[in-house]
Amino acid sequence: MFMGASTKQGYEIANKSRDIVRSLIGDKTASLSPEEKSIVERIVHSTADVEYADLALITDDFVSKSVKSLKKDLDILTDINMVRVGINKYSGNVNCFISHPDVIKMAKESEITRAAAAMQYAADNGFEGIVAVGNAPTALYKVIELVENGEMDVKSVVGVPVGFVGAADSKESLLKTNIPSLITRGPKGGTPVAVAAINSLISISKTGQE
Amino acid sequence: MFMGASTKQGYEIANKSRDIVRSLIGDKTASLSPEEKSIVERIVHSTADVEYADLALITDDFVSKSVKSLKKDLDILTDINMVRVGINKYSGNVNCFISHPDVIKMAKESEITRAAAAMQYAADNGFEGIVAVGNAPTALYKVIELVENGEMDVKSVVGVPVGFVGAADSKESLLKTNIPSLITRGPKGGTPVAVAAINSLISISKTGQE
Repeated sequence: MFMGASTKQGYEIANKSRDIVRSLIGDKTASLSPEEKSIVERIVHSTADVEYADLALITDDFVSKSVKSLKKDLDILTDINMVRVGINKYSGNVNCFISHPDVIKMAKESEITRAAAAMQYAADNGFEGIVAVGNAPTALYKVIELVENGEMDVKSVVGVPVGFVGAADSKESLLKTNIPSLITRGPKGGTPVAVAAINSLISISKTGQE
Repeated sequence: MFMGASTKQGYEIANKSRDIVRSLIGDKTASLSPEEKSIVERIVHSTADVEYADLALITDDFVSKSVKSLKKDLDILTDINMVRVGINKYSGNVNCFISHPDVIKMAKESEITRAAAAMQYAADNGFEGIVAVGNAPTALYKVIELVENGEMDVKSVVGVPVGFVGAADSKESLLKTNIPSLITRGPKGGTPVAVAAINSLISISKTGQE
């Protein structure tokens, strides 16, 4: 398994793609650790968007805390199902509660988004592990609030919500906390970015590299 | 339901986002039909990437053929599960066969990607409807081959595979066929683009607009 490939042809494509990615962003990742470099390369591979080499920002403790959580098979919590199904090589649980009846009810009653209510629901039900937010700024704000109130045991956050309303601010708010984090600055981000980052971390936790 | 929003707060965010998107790309969508405009706006809303207003290319018969297929509740076939789960408001079937045991076997035996084998599997099992390729160029090439051989009944294709290896060429190949299509030129594309296009078409098929 290399960058998601599981057949001979898939492996060849992934290999060639990584060479192209390295030639395109090599100068921008020179100061990163080998693990951080792998993560950023995989994000650019997955999006074909070299701008992510400039936008991605990884805190110093992000890789070590994330790998530790993954080696213990702690949970991965995602904001939406598109992120959940993209993470398909993990030995622990990958959960998304956005369609859970209790979450739908909570969102309506509290007039919050279902993505935010899903974070509250996870915290209320003993979540411990990594949170991956690939879509909803409201989910990221909720995670920050829960961690700061001591109500959620979050080892690290991949915080890459996307959009013109709230996404950039939510990511800057995450950076201001002490939570080990990967973000993408500005409005851009999204489910492929979240999936690429988590899948890269899973590879690193198994083999030390991709 | 407006651009994926299902709560009051979600609706307000989506509404504000659409205003911002229109202010950013309005000049670039001026020549499109109202339906095509909706689709491109939703793609830019979902990716926060205005470049898609330049990259998206829609053939004249794409909206009408797609809406006809959706009104009949014909199948939607996706290359990977991330696209499948993003399409969550359709009254017909949304299928992805990439993890089907027969597909995994076929991919190994024929040394093709699982995404390509999944298209062959669908064709062999009487598929009729819209194909959405959000990831794998190999899946798009397989669809083109199957349609040209008269082996697959495809009403339209959302062909937006992503990547530096093969994606751009596969999309140009699709444009050279007579298949009603939406593509994104160049390496960029991806699952959120495919999902945005299909969900926009579903809204249009129900209400005439988003």
